[in-house]
Amino acid sequence: MKIYLDCMPCFLRQALEAARISMSDEKMQKRILIEATKIISNVDQFDSSPEVGRELYHLVKKHTGIDDPYREIKKNHIESAQRIYPDMKYFLFKQKDRLEASLKIAAVGNVIDAAVNGNVDVKRNIIEEFDKEFKINDIERFKKDISTAKTLLIIGDNAGETVFDKILVEELLFLDITYAVRSEPIINDATLQEGLESGLNYGTHLISSGCSAPGTILEACSREFLDVYEAADIIISKGQGNYETLSDENRGIFFLLKAKCPVIAKDLGVSINDYVFVCK
Amino acid sequence: MKIYLDCMPCFLRQALEAARISMSDEKMQKRILIEATKIISNVDQFDSSPEVGRELYHLVKKHTGIDDPYREIKKNHIESAQRIYPDMKYFLFKQKDRLEASLKIAAVGNVIDAAVNGNVDVKRNIIEEFDKEFKINDIERFKKDISTAKTLLIIGDNAGETVFDKILVEELLFLDITYAVRSEPIINDATLQEGLESGLNYGTHLISSGCSAPGTILEACSREFLDVYEAADIIISKGQGNYETLSDENRGIFFLLKAKCPVIAKDLGVSINDYVFVCK
Repeated sequence: MKIYLDCMPCFLRQALEAARISMSDEKMQKRILIEATKIISNVDQFDSSPEVGRELYHLVKKHTGIDDPYREIKKNHIESAQRIYPDMKYFLFKQKDRLEASLKIAAVGNVIDAAVNGNVDVKRNIIEEFDKEFKINDIERFKKDISTAKTLLIIGDNAGETVFDKILVEELLFLDITYAVRSEPIINDATLQEGLESGLNYGTHLISSGCSAPGTILEACSREFLDVYEAADIIISKGQGNYETLSDENRGIFFLLKAKCPVIAKDLGVSINDYVFVCK
Repeated sequence: MKIYLDCMPCFLRQALEAARISMSDEKMQKRILIEATKIISNVDQFDSSPEVGRELYHLVKKHTGIDDPYREIKKNHIESAQRIYPDMKYFLFKQKDRLEASLKIAAVGNVIDAAVNGNVDVKRNIIEEFDKEFKINDIERFKKDISTAKTLLIIGDNAGETVFDKILVEELLFLDITYAVRSEPIINDATLQEGLESGLNYGTHLISSGCSAPGTILEACSREFLDVYEAADIIISKGQGNYETLSDENRGIFFLLKAKCPVIAKDLGVSINDYVFVCK
């Protein structure tokens, strides 16, 4: 997906958020923001928003010396998700179409950050989300594809969401599954550490994509990842950052996400907050 | 009011909005945004957000050649306000404290842009707003002050809101009133043209402040305005932009506004969407 003009103010907002999470020194936060404007002014040098995101988070890291400012937040999200894991399983137990329900659960996992940060009843709010329909739903194509498939690659997104993805993994254990995470801490995205904490090493080959951006920039990925990517019979890409970096690949990737920002919603032709399971 | 870090992403958002209202060429819009990042990176050279706003709108004007991109919008807002003028008068007729009600009406006028753009029932939504209480209400001080005052300066804000201000003016005709507007078109702020279209030349001395920013930067104001500003027994400052530029003057100005952005709400110690009538 190209970088829309609306992304430019949002880059600055994200840089401010990351700076504030990393430290409380307002002078340093301002310095980071001023340098961030220089990165944003070079917008034409980037192919996708996660590429800009990578630069901005490197900038924050450089100034703060903190490698993983979201570490506690990620741990907290994983723990919150694990507390409602039994509820997810019970929800699934009551469904006629378990596969579709497990895809929905994995999509809803994408909002664990908002649910936890919203300081509301996480469990009740999450369970309510499970009943929402996919606005675009390529489940029939997915069912057809998995009937002959042997290998599946899931490209993960946030920490915490990883626990929801385990529910999906457990419905697809007849496939040889690889689950890929980011190579380095970036925002609240899952790395190997959070993949392990979520138990994704059971049932999947848990690997790093080799990419440190909050998305999957193929040119930056490791050979190990690219071998799996090229050979996989089916790919499920989770979340917005992976969509932004892979949506133009035309390789038949299943994108599973909630449209959390107006720009991505518009690109997908849906409304903000809609869930989609779309093959592109 | 100082420039908060949260204002920096918002500057870029406002530049994009102004660029889009001025023309549809996306390449030019991007060029404007890139140049806007350079202005924003010099944030330390500005004392208040409206100073940055002025630079950004000059940038948009320079690239588009359009002097008053909001002209049609301003006309539309004035017409919308004039259509509900009789309803405002009828609302006022029913109130025990006409003075406080007319101040509330003038404060609500500040949301005419949102009400019109929201594509909803403007009249119903506006009338409902009249019943909301001021979160900070210095009406008693105001009543005491006007009991001995002879001159009043009202510093206007948006076009459309000007029609609501007429209601307030008509309750204060025992005072010698000056109504000041911006010297040049800037966003949807009122200039002399919109002041005249709103009928503010009847009952007030309608003047330009001499300042072309979306606020009142005293160093940029005309001698004519400063003479009135310095001599006025009472000053009412309308809206956020005037608050941002005058809140540190400590001259005993009555600020009448709706806190439409989280930063200004925080600075005032109120919640977003609260109405305030505060003397500082």
